[in-house]
Amino acid sequence: GAPLLLIAGPCVIENEEKTLEIAERIKGIVRDMDVNFVFKASFDKANRTSIDSFRGPGLEQGLAILGKVKSRLGLPVISDVHSPDQVGPASEVLDILQIPAFLCRQTDLLTAAGNSGKPVNVKKGQFVGPWDMKHVTGKVLSTGNERIMLTERGSSFGYNNLVVDFRNFSIMRDLGFPVVFDATHSVQMPGGLGSCSGGDRSYVPLLARAAAAAGVDGVFFEVHTDPDKALCDGPNSLTMEMLESILPQLLAIRKAAS
Amino acid sequence: GAPLLLIAGPCVIENEEKTLEIAERIKGIVRDMDVNFVFKASFDKANRTSIDSFRGPGLEQGLAILGKVKSRLGLPVISDVHSPDQVGPASEVLDILQIPAFLCRQTDLLTAAGNSGKPVNVKKGQFVGPWDMKHVTGKVLSTGNERIMLTERGSSFGYNNLVVDFRNFSIMRDLGFPVVFDATHSVQMPGGLGSCSGGDRSYVPLLARAAAAAGVDGVFFEVHTDPDKALCDGPNSLTMEMLESILPQLLAIRKAAS
Amino acid sequence: GAPLLLIAGPCVIENEEKTLEIAERIKGIVRDMDVNFVFKASFDKANRTSIDSFRGPGLEQGLAILGKVKSRLGLPVISDVHSPDQVGPASEVLDILQIPAFLCRQTDLLTAAGNSGKPVNVKKGQFVGPWDMKHVTGKVLSTGNERIMLTERGSSFGYNNLVVDFRNFSIMRDLGFPVVFDATHSVQMPGGLGSCSGGDRSYVPLLARAAAAAGVDGVFFEVHTDPDKALCDGPNSLTMEMLESILPQLLAIRKAAS
Amino acid sequence: GAPLLLIAGPCVIENEEKTLEIAERIKGIVRDMDVNFVFKASFDKANRTSIDSFRGPGLEQGLAILGKVKSRLGLPVISDVHSPDQVGPASEVLDILQIPAFLCRQTDLLTAAGNSGKPVNVKKGQFVGPWDMKHVTGKVLSTGNERIMLTERGSSFGYNNLVVDFRNFSIMRDLGFPVVFDATHSVQMPGGLGSCSGGDRSYVPLLARAAAAAGVDGVFFEVHTDPDKALCDGPNSLTMEMLESILPQLLAIRKAAS
Repeated sequence: GAPLLLIAGPCVIENEEKTLEIAERIKGIVRDMDVNFVFKASFDKANRTSIDSFRGPGLEQGLAILGKVKSRLGLPVISDVHSPDQVGPASEVLDILQIPAFLCRQTDLLTAAGNSGKPVNVKKGQFVGPWDMKHVTGKVLSTGNERIMLTERGSSFGYNNLVVDFRNFSIMRDLGFPVVFDATHSVQMPGGLGSCSGGDRSYVPLLARAAAAAGVDGVFFEVHTDPDKALCDGPNSLTMEMLESILPQLLAIRKAAS
Repeated sequence: GAPLLLIAGPCVIENEEKTLEIAERIKGIVRDMDVNFVFKASFDKANRTSIDSFRGPGLEQGLAILGKVKSRLGLPVISDVHSPDQVGPASEVLDILQIPAFLCRQTDLLTAAGNSGKPVNVKKGQFVGPWDMKHVTGKVLSTGNERIMLTERGSSFGYNNLVVDFRNFSIMRDLGFPVVFDATHSVQMPGGLGSCSGGDRSYVPLLARAAAAAGVDGVFFEVHTDPDKALCDGPNSLTMEMLESILPQLLAIRKAAS
Repeated sequence: GAPLLLIAGPCVIENEEKTLEIAERIKGIVRDMDVNFVFKASFDKANRTSIDSFRGPGLEQGLAILGKVKSRLGLPVISDVHSPDQVGPASEVLDILQIPAFLCRQTDLLTAAGNSGKPVNVKKGQFVGPWDMKHVTGKVLSTGNERIMLTERGSSFGYNNLVVDFRNFSIMRDLGFPVVFDATHSVQMPGGLGSCSGGDRSYVPLLARAAAAAGVDGVFFEVHTDPDKALCDGPNSLTMEMLESILPQLLAIRKAAS
Repeated sequence: GAPLLLIAGPCVIENEEKTLEIAERIKGIVRDMDVNFVFKASFDKANRTSIDSFRGPGLEQGLAILGKVKSRLGLPVISDVHSPDQVGPASEVLDILQIPAFLCRQTDLLTAAGNSGKPVNVKKGQFVGPWDMKHVTGKVLSTGNERIMLTERGSSFGYNNLVVDFRNFSIMRDLGFPVVFDATHSVQMPGGLGSCSGGDRSYVPLLARAAAAAGVDGVFFEVHTDPDKALCDGPNSLTMEMLESILPQLLAIRKAAS
């Protein structure tokens, strides 16, 4: 089968040096693995829980840093776009455009992303049934762009909690597109820490292993050299060591499950 | 106590004539009631389920029609804004800016709306705990604008269904802002009709009565002269007759409950 | 319309003296109200969260105490039955048999209760859709007993939380039976206090007012002279003063809503 | 590691011949696998959705048939007990007593099962948080019986639907007991077919593979030689062929994940 798609990186671009360091570390980890690695970091966290949360360097500076990840390390890059006007500049740098879960029904954003011609990774909204992603992909397909991926990142389950419904991997694959499991956001507890989202990285390996057995095409991890000092999503980010130990497991499980 | 705030109108602006007709009909219905009526219709449905759904006349034409509702009928008007760049033109016409539920955590939209100086009505996301609306209001308050309303429109309850948690009225009022109950969107079944959202208007009066007893400051109804021919949200829209019969009940219940 | 049915009393029979005291206090409170009062207390809490929780005096002693509430105070009484063999002795004393929510699908219990000929009040399971109570009532009806009431006490909403779906009052009334709202259990947080269920009585009046406006036939309150010392369900029990102040509101709202 | 525990058999004992046939077929399938097979069939479905559903042969006849599965085929057997008085006769035949999910908080049933000295498999209620199973196991442990297993079979997710939260495997194992995944009941749609529960067996293999990767100690499948003619739970039962093809996968995944 196809190599495992790995989307990984820090939640947000903290600065150029840290970003390049993390990208290089992950590149080293996957060097001899049957993995397609795409580096991910956000240039702007446009919907952080609180107004006081760190948002990132913004579009221009952020894309410049992601451009350096591409040119210096030879890695493809993916990042979120939040409005149609970001799509133009973003698609000059990014290899894949990502649509955040809260925005997965915003028609103009989806068609702008589709019109860029770049692959589009849409995260399923926490409030959306898996079968209803058909309408979401329909909005992208209306532009003639068929290079779509869908990402599961959990569904609302009461307040301040998400649950991953593993049936969704099958339902969304049946829509005809590769499916990615965002293992770190799926363990978020939205708003659970007061002014930011909590989470529990200890469940990430278990969920990722289970998703590999369920047949996902890709996995997404937030990874940081020092998660407890990360400026965003630290509680659910993996350490480098966790990433290094989990990837061989995922590859072995994939093989066993196929 | 204060008069009941009534936000009502068709889901979307279908055309000028129909919009003015509906506004005038509602104005007539509330003439002798202890009700503050604000007319609501969307100029653009930016996140319809399907790409094929009717979206409305767009910003410019839509605001022009809402301007006529103001000038000809003397009614205040409210409508959704979807991006920071819509806030400028919208706030020249609208009396209240409304933030859609899916967008209730988009920081730039909230601060742009706040900076307009206009009252801002934020709908609680279907994926947000009521206590977490504190961070949402914090984003608006960061602009110095304290004229905020919060609207309950249901929380995700499994797939393709919403549930109204009546505790939320109390929890959100305790944040210090008036609370509105969006009775018609709360009975939506998101994605439930395939390419558009289903719903069941038969529960609207029951839920609205209950909300009046629970002490809400305002109610929101989608109302149409012919819901079955409405270009959007027909299944959960009220008829004029339903609106006329329910309002006196709500006022009587409010009085009894106070 | 019919008087409001009020089912009220302490969660569990603590002892004869306290039970009679509470029954008499409530009897006094409703004396001049348009209310049908049925006294409720459990003789055995068969599914307390923890093995260490107080369970009550048991079947024999409990029924004897409830018998004294009947004979001395002239009040009808209701209590839970947990197994078919309890139905015989219980139906000699009780005026209404109540089926606990967790047991609402146990066929033998439902038919035994039905065969007693006594009215049967079935609480909707937290895991049951309102329309599926049709099968539950079908089990009782199979005995020829049509005197059935259905009680809403919240549905599972994530972990350790319940939500009251107000549409259920309408859906269950359409099954053809009176509907009761159990306002105090509906604010439970199951397991939320570690070894027992938590709850928040402050939401009880709001929910009860809303239910009255929604047209319920009856309300159920746990009431205690000193909730903070109650041996069960203290966090969600009302004080006598709260009961006294809320009942006139409910009657006024009912009238306004009809 | 330990062999995989496999609990499998038809939902309900239809008759002696069919029961022995199914048990023998499964025995043959697992002959050379690293699997501990325990045969499961219910003698009484005490909480079927509808009064008209088939319930099984009852305690006495059912235990006699299970006794023949033991004596003729040399297989250990497990079945549900629904009341304390069933525990005595059941524990003379059964190797493991199973507590149904709806009854997982019934104190007397748990302590009666514990007092039998037999291993007790408690299914987590659809309405119970995984951490709250600590109180459930505490009830069994109060009898001195420490041979407990916990089974995940999904949590209520809106109405007529269940979701499996894979974090629960980890949370319940941390309570100190082996954890079983009931793959077929987890795809039930409770009440979803009107007078009986629906379901979708097509998701069973995916969920089972994922659970194997998540590290469960055992899996539970309803298996039938002709699911579409099964008298209970046909829609979610596996065929013999499905069982035969999935078990080697589970064993390979387990190995890869360890």
